[in-house]
Amino acid sequence: MKKTLIKNVGIYQNHTVSEHQNIEITDDKITGFPKDKDVLFCAYDEVIDGHNMLALPGFVNAHNHIAMTVFRSYADDMDLMDWLQHKIWPAEDHLDGDVVYAQTMLGIAEMIRCGTTSFADMYFFMDDTARAVEESGIRACLSRGMTGITPSAETALKESKQLFLDWHKKGDGRITVMLGPHAPYTNTPDYLHRVVDLAHELGAEIHTHLSETKGEVENIKKQYGKSPIAWFDELGLFDTGCLAAHCVWVDDDDLDIMARKHVRVAHNPGSNLKLASGFAPIHKMLDKGIVVGLGTDGASSNNNLDIMEEMRLAVLVHKANTLDPLVIPAETAVQMLTEGGARALGYRDIGRLETGYKADITLIDRSGLHWYPRHDMLSLLAYAANSMDVDTVLVNGKVLLRNKEFTTIDIEKVKSEAERTKIKLFASL
Amino acid sequence: MKKTLIKNVGIYQNHTVSEHQNIEITDDKITGFPKDKDVLFCAYDEVIDGHNMLALPGFVNAHNHIAMTVFRSYADDMDLMDWLQHKIWPAEDHLDGDVVYAQTMLGIAEMIRCGTTSFADMYFFMDDTARAVEESGIRACLSRGMTGITPSAETALKESKQLFLDWHKKGDGRITVMLGPHAPYTNTPDYLHRVVDLAHELGAEIHTHLSETKGEVENIKKQYGKSPIAWFDELGLFDTGCLAAHCVWVDDDDLDIMARKHVRVAHNPGSNLKLASGFAPIHKMLDKGIVVGLGTDGASSNNNLDIMEEMRLAVLVHKANTLDPLVIPAETAVQMLTEGGARALGYRDIGRLETGYKADITLIDRSGLHWYPRHDMLSLLAYAANSMDVDTVLVNGKVLLRNKEFTTIDIEKVKSEAERTKIKLFASL
Repeated sequence: MKKTLIKNVGIYQNHTVSEHQNIEITDDKITGFPKDKDVLFCAYDEVIDGHNMLALPGFVNAHNHIAMTVFRSYADDMDLMDWLQHKIWPAEDHLDGDVVYAQTMLGIAEMIRCGTTSFADMYFFMDDTARAVEESGIRACLSRGMTGITPSAETALKESKQLFLDWHKKGDGRITVMLGPHAPYTNTPDYLHRVVDLAHELGAEIHTHLSETKGEVENIKKQYGKSPIAWFDELGLFDTGCLAAHCVWVDDDDLDIMARKHVRVAHNPGSNLKLASGFAPIHKMLDKGIVVGLGTDGASSNNNLDIMEEMRLAVLVHKANTLDPLVIPAETAVQMLTEGGARALGYRDIGRLETGYKADITLIDRSGLHWYPRHDMLSLLAYAANSMDVDTVLVNGKVLLRNKEFTTIDIEKVKSEAERTKIKLFASL
Repeated sequence: MKKTLIKNVGIYQNHTVSEHQNIEITDDKITGFPKDKDVLFCAYDEVIDGHNMLALPGFVNAHNHIAMTVFRSYADDMDLMDWLQHKIWPAEDHLDGDVVYAQTMLGIAEMIRCGTTSFADMYFFMDDTARAVEESGIRACLSRGMTGITPSAETALKESKQLFLDWHKKGDGRITVMLGPHAPYTNTPDYLHRVVDLAHELGAEIHTHLSETKGEVENIKKQYGKSPIAWFDELGLFDTGCLAAHCVWVDDDDLDIMARKHVRVAHNPGSNLKLASGFAPIHKMLDKGIVVGLGTDGASSNNNLDIMEEMRLAVLVHKANTLDPLVIPAETAVQMLTEGGARALGYRDIGRLETGYKADITLIDRSGLHWYPRHDMLSLLAYAANSMDVDTVLVNGKVLLRNKEFTTIDIEKVKSEAERTKIKLFASL
């Protein structure tokens, strides 16, 4: 049994911040918030000084293709289909497990540095991604991307099942697995029926992309006579639980289906802006009780994995788009960054600083100039802070970042391996 | 004579980055880019190692109300008029020079830390702001805000003239002064005629707010039968040169006037988003050859003074708003951050890394994880970097930030003075 104390720290709980608190952690769980007079320092294996820090539930990156760090800045300022067809897809054909492992390690390190304690991912060579997750200590919900219209369709089904059997609930419970049918426009009804059958067989949830662009919605409506949301609902994709990325072009009928079927949304404002997809109506989703978390999407369409930047975008862009300065307040943005993301990934005991919850905790250093002077901590966090303020990160009670330094990752090796595997990949094109 | 060398650095010139270059600075100017074989290290008083760094023209914050740092996080998530009438204006009545000086120092420090080498400001107690600019070593273009409809109208005219006489071209030439008629909706035709007369008398340029909200444009059209831009043009406000903040709600006729009269624009995406003002059509401005720089606006409507965050917003939000991923490419965003801002402030020998230009230089440390792997430096800068990457800042050839530490500012004193004056101000309300 290991006991850790975070002492004298500001704590975000129940939408508000209380200063000068203590957090007790036993092994992987939060076990209490003792008052100063009840704290016996010698009873703890580790004491973390929270002076001038703010403790939050660990940030959740609800949608990523982590190994796409290899394409960071490779091809920007292009039309989406031009970018995919002429740059990304041809290069992805040359990926291998070595590249994916090295680039995943880079992405995990970047996410931890930005306060992220868990992420949802959909990509290829997911065994190598799972291995990096296991070694680094981060938490992840993994899916093998499945496209029914490509030659890899059969392999993808097989690998998805195997990924679930090999890794679901493994790595001290830090790894979960979902099935990842890529999107409506890359699949067929027959194939999606097989995905749904497999989901029922395994008891697996679904991670997919839905209604990302206006063009996608128009094409699916033309092809199937209904919206991507309505079509996926009809096919049963929502019946075992579903995490849907984007949901930019959804109408009121779509929102009703999503609310009724408990579809959870990964909102990716950075990607939606950069790829000119549009503005997802997350205020309407939240009004209907739909769970919304925040995601970066892959680094190639962002170009970083900074989830606090996504919070900043989420709290800002919808105000101008609706011409309503009250539409997404600071508190809502912080909720999406933490509890909303945790619920989107299907976690039940993550996303709050409460006794019995997993000790996934991010400590923000408030010594930066942008934290002065101080009136409202949530406003400062949502509108002024940046991810380089992140000082300490714990996942499952284990410290992964301390004083802005990594404890489980050799960061110089990670950078050089990222460069080596990039050079290897692009030499093979 | 002082000679400085920045050695072995990546340089951004003519829209592209060249690695392994040297920059020679003599006193306040860039005096050359010597090749390695021609460098005699002992000839320099200071040699700055640019290894893994990127040198850019110093960043320009083209619109600020710097002492509003005192209101950072004081009142967010409110309607604009509710915020102004019930929170900001009553509190501003209690400002004094002590508060403004301390809060200006905080803002200057925050801006230098984010790579900013010059800024345009409009506020009150501008003598105290000028003093902080002189002491800190930053460059600034200052205006005393003038509102013809308030009791301070006469004082403002008098103080504006005195500010110009006392400070224009002072502080080693780092300080310039403009006249600051606040906005169309806070002024009267008679008063604005007097401002224009004073501008001609002094040879002073104008810094103002124009067409920020839809409501402003509707009201001015109702009152004067023309748009704010057309009205200000008719009054002669553009005749001595004009820096106009916002310009969100401008139509094609407005843009034609702005182009013809060489109105320079401070685009403030963070403020326009947070206050739900809307999206300024900067792509149309740039198409017409209108100069566009970037600004944070005051910290109370942002809530930080991070100009790299404004670049990120500028490069992202217009894509989604126009549904065109090519509308503002990385290169354009970097140009607005540097040369566009310098031109907006009326500088002739600032904004480029060229022989004869002032040595206002920002060095970006590229060791952060988000800089790996590397394909395109401008894409990484525009889409992945953050202001905490700023390592070294020079203004007028003098180092103000070195290894992320301040050389001219006592930062702990700045923070405590910011808190002290905030407490004093709010105790007086």
